[in-house]
Order: sequence, then C-alpha cells, then structure tokens
Amino acid sequence: MNAANIVFVGAGNLATHLAKALYRSGHRILQIYSCTESSARTLAEEVEADYTTDLRKLLANDVSLYVVSLTDAAFTELLPEMTTGREQALWVHTAGSLSMNVWENRVKRYGALYPLQTFSKQREVDFCNVPFFIEAVYREDTEYLKTIAGSLSPKIYEADSEQRKCLHLAAVFACNFVNHLYALSADILEKYNLPFEWLVPLIDETARKIHELPPEYAQTGPAVRQDKNIMDKHQSMLADQPEVQEIYRLLSENIRKNAY
Amino acid sequence: MNAANIVFVGAGNLATHLAKALYRSGHRILQIYSCTESSARTLAEEVEADYTTDLRKLLANDVSLYVVSLTDAAFTELLPEMTTGREQALWVHTAGSLSMNVWENRVKRYGALYPLQTFSKQREVDFCNVPFFIEAVYREDTEYLKTIAGSLSPKIYEADSEQRKCLHLAAVFACNFVNHLYALSADILEKYNLPFEWLVPLIDETARKIHELPPEYAQTGPAVRQDKNIMDKHQSMLADQPEVQEIYRLLSENIRKNAY
Repeated sequence: MNAANIVFVGAGNLATHLAKALYRSGHRILQIYSCTESSARTLAEEVEADYTTDLRKLLANDVSLYVVSLTDAAFTELLPEMTTGREQALWVHTAGSLSMNVWENRVKRYGALYPLQTFSKQREVDFCNVPFFIEAVYREDTEYLKTIAGSLSPKIYEADSEQRKCLHLAAVFACNFVNHLYALSADILEKYNLPFEWLVPLIDETARKIHELPPEYAQTGPAVRQDKNIMDKHQSMLADQPEVQEIYRLLSENIRKNAY
Repeated sequence: MNAANIVFVGAGNLATHLAKALYRSGHRILQIYSCTESSARTLAEEVEADYTTDLRKLLANDVSLYVVSLTDAAFTELLPEMTTGREQALWVHTAGSLSMNVWENRVKRYGALYPLQTFSKQREVDFCNVPFFIEAVYREDTEYLKTIAGSLSPKIYEADSEQRKCLHLAAVFACNFVNHLYALSADILEKYNLPFEWLVPLIDETARKIHELPPEYAQTGPAVRQDKNIMDKHQSMLADQPEVQEIYRLLSENIRKNAY
C-alpha cells in the first residue's frame, strides 16, 4: 500500500500508541496537535512529525487522513475550528462512544477508526492482536481505512456506531472495571503486607479461562456456591470500607442471580 | 521424596484438580470420599483410588495425609465423623477462608494447604504457576506439606490463617468478581449480536498490564478521566438492568475516588 500522510489531533494514550504504530509501519505522521505543548512535542519527536498547539495552524493540504483522538467534550468543542478550511479531507475519530454522525454538516468524508484496547503511556502495545472497528460514509473511504488499519493488525472489522458504543460499554466492564477490581485486591493485600504478585497467576488464569469457557460457566467462588458463611466473613473484613463492602455485596448478589 | 498416601475428603473442582496433579506427580491417592457417589467414583477412577460415600468407611491406617476440600458449612458438619478414630493422622483443609484452628480439639496434627487458583471442571490447570500457602501446628508437618506441595509447584509459601483469609478475599475480587464482569460484558455484546471473542485481546492485555504496572497506574477509561458525557450515555444504555446500572455507578464512583 502507499504510505498515508496522517495528522493527529490529540496526543493522549490512544493517539500516542496509534501514531507510533502507524509511523513504524511506514506511514508519515505529518503533524500532531495537542493543547498541551509538552504532549504534542513528545509525540511529534517520536514519530518525526511537526507539532502545534494552535488549531488554526493545522495542516490543510496533502493530508490523507485526520485522526482525532480527544475526550468527547473536547471533540465537540474543537470540531468547528479543526475542520474549517479542511472540509474536503477524510476525518476519523477513535472513540467507541461517539456516533459517526458527530461529523455531519462539518465535513463530507468522515468515519471512525476504533481500536479496542487499553493504552497506558508506560506500556508498549502489540497491535497485531488489537481488533479495529471501522465505519465511514463512503465505501471507498471504508476500504481505505481498512487498508490503513490492516497495516497494523489482521483483525479489521466493520461496525456501525451502535455496535461501537456497545463494544465500548462492554470494554468498560471487561477492562476498566476489571482493573479497578485488581486495584481493590491490591489494597486488601497491602493492608496485610502481602505482595500483589502472589495474585498474578490467579489473574492470568482467570483471563485465560474465558478463551475456552463462556464466562458464566467459568464462575467460581463463594457467591456462585452460595457459601453464605464465607460471604458474611468477607463483608465483616471490609467493615471499614463501606463502598468496597457495597461493591462486594452487589457483585455477589448479581452472581447469585445469574448463576448458571 | 517418598510418595505420600493421600485420602481426599471432597471431590469438587479444587479436590479434583489437586488429586489429579498429586497422582500425576507420583503420590498415591488411596481413597476419595464424597457424599455424591458419581463425583467420588469419577475422581477415584482418574487417580486409581477407592471411593466411598460413607465417612465411617474412610481409611484409618497408613494414611500420610488427609486433604479435606469441602464448603465451610459441610466441613463443620462432617468434622467430628471424619476425624473420629483417625486422630493421630495429619489433616489439612484447602480453604482460604477457614482458620487452621477449626481442627483444634479434634486432631493433633493439622493445618492448611491452600492453592491460590480458580478451578473449573472443564479446564486443566498448570500447577507449576500456582502458589501454595501452607500452615501447620508442627514444624515437621509444615516441612512435610511444603515437600508435597513442592512436588507440584515451585511457589510454596508459609501463611498463617489471617494471611490466608486476606489472600482469599483479595482473590474473590481479582478472580470471582472479575469473571462476573467478563460475564456482564458478554451479556452486553450478546444483546447486540456481537461476538465475545472480540473482547478477548482487551481482556488479555488488561491482565498482562498488571505484570508491569501497579493496577492503580494501569487504570484507563471514562471513570478515571471523569468523562461524564460517556458515563451518562452508558448508564442510559443500561436502563433496563437496574442492578448492572448500579454496578456501573458504584465502580465508576470508586474509580474516581481512588484516581491516582
């Protein structure tokens, strides 16, 4: 494929990992915009791009693709300024939560390019395994976006805005909330001076199990066994943390209700 | 080491996996007790053991170790009958939640052998990675139990009853509750006819991240960013499932409070 000329609007975790991966696979990253100069500069240096903190200076010519990776609120706020004078180009955002139609009336060729993954600054991501979900108004743009994403991963799917929102919500449960439960378990261990690494094999196996078993069949523990003795003891161990106690109660109750 | 002669009381998931692993590593499993005949027979066949559903027929001689793997309630109920006439032997339970002292006044040599892992009937477990937590009254029994567990895994630790309870509580969060969140995300995808396998790379990466980053640093998503737009949309997508909506609200609120 031909290398694309790409401009990034946003330099957060997702933009950083995506821009670096595209750069490494041979695309040209022309420019990075961020309202935070240090973020813009750091990413720009890594991908040999220019950078700006002024949307009026966003490149307007010879750009194959604008990739916009902002919070939903910043997106809405910056949309008019970033697109004005660049209405003919192809624009995508990377948000699971935003409908494709947010672009409507601002530009003609638009869509979404959503990598379903969790990105932290401190950790490299292997894109080979990341599913990308593509949507665009025009068939040729859809195909073009599939080619670009296809240079990073073999897992390229088309998904409309409703499906993307659903994927995003499911991801909040399976990733963001899961990570918070890891954090709560780390707190519990810390209170007793036990190392978190003792839990890591269990965490790994819990994730690996669902490669083979649907999660409802993989459920174990006192709640699914309805071992009320243990659940009562656990609740009392959490007496000094009423919110965590409530999380324990609510999740246990929901496991019971959905027991296979 | 010499092969041990082991009797199992209980034939649930943990007992099944542990008995099979001990059998494979050269120990003799003499007998399996379960109140459910089919469970006792199935496991007994796999490990070339006898089986019984009658505690009075539990072997009393030449047993190096009794491993008791029951729910806490069943343990308390069966304790007198299973130990009577076998007071001189070494007894352990495998429960994270039970104090070692549950054996007190029934037998003299006792303890706990707690493998920190999730066991499902349908899936083999690689014990090499499973940490075992050992406790016993007498030093020589502690060492003996460490040798037996050490024939399955290099990760053998001593932990007292308080530490074991803490590990168990942390495991409920990091494994049982995590798995339930996987199940909730599978439900969400199913409603939109999207395949659960699309989430698997995200689930894997979420687990892998905490090998490198403490979970509170690995936190991503709308709650830690305080992206209220997205959280409101998600809550409204869950309007027909008030319990799940409440789980969403409570976990998001707790992520915000603990944001790094």
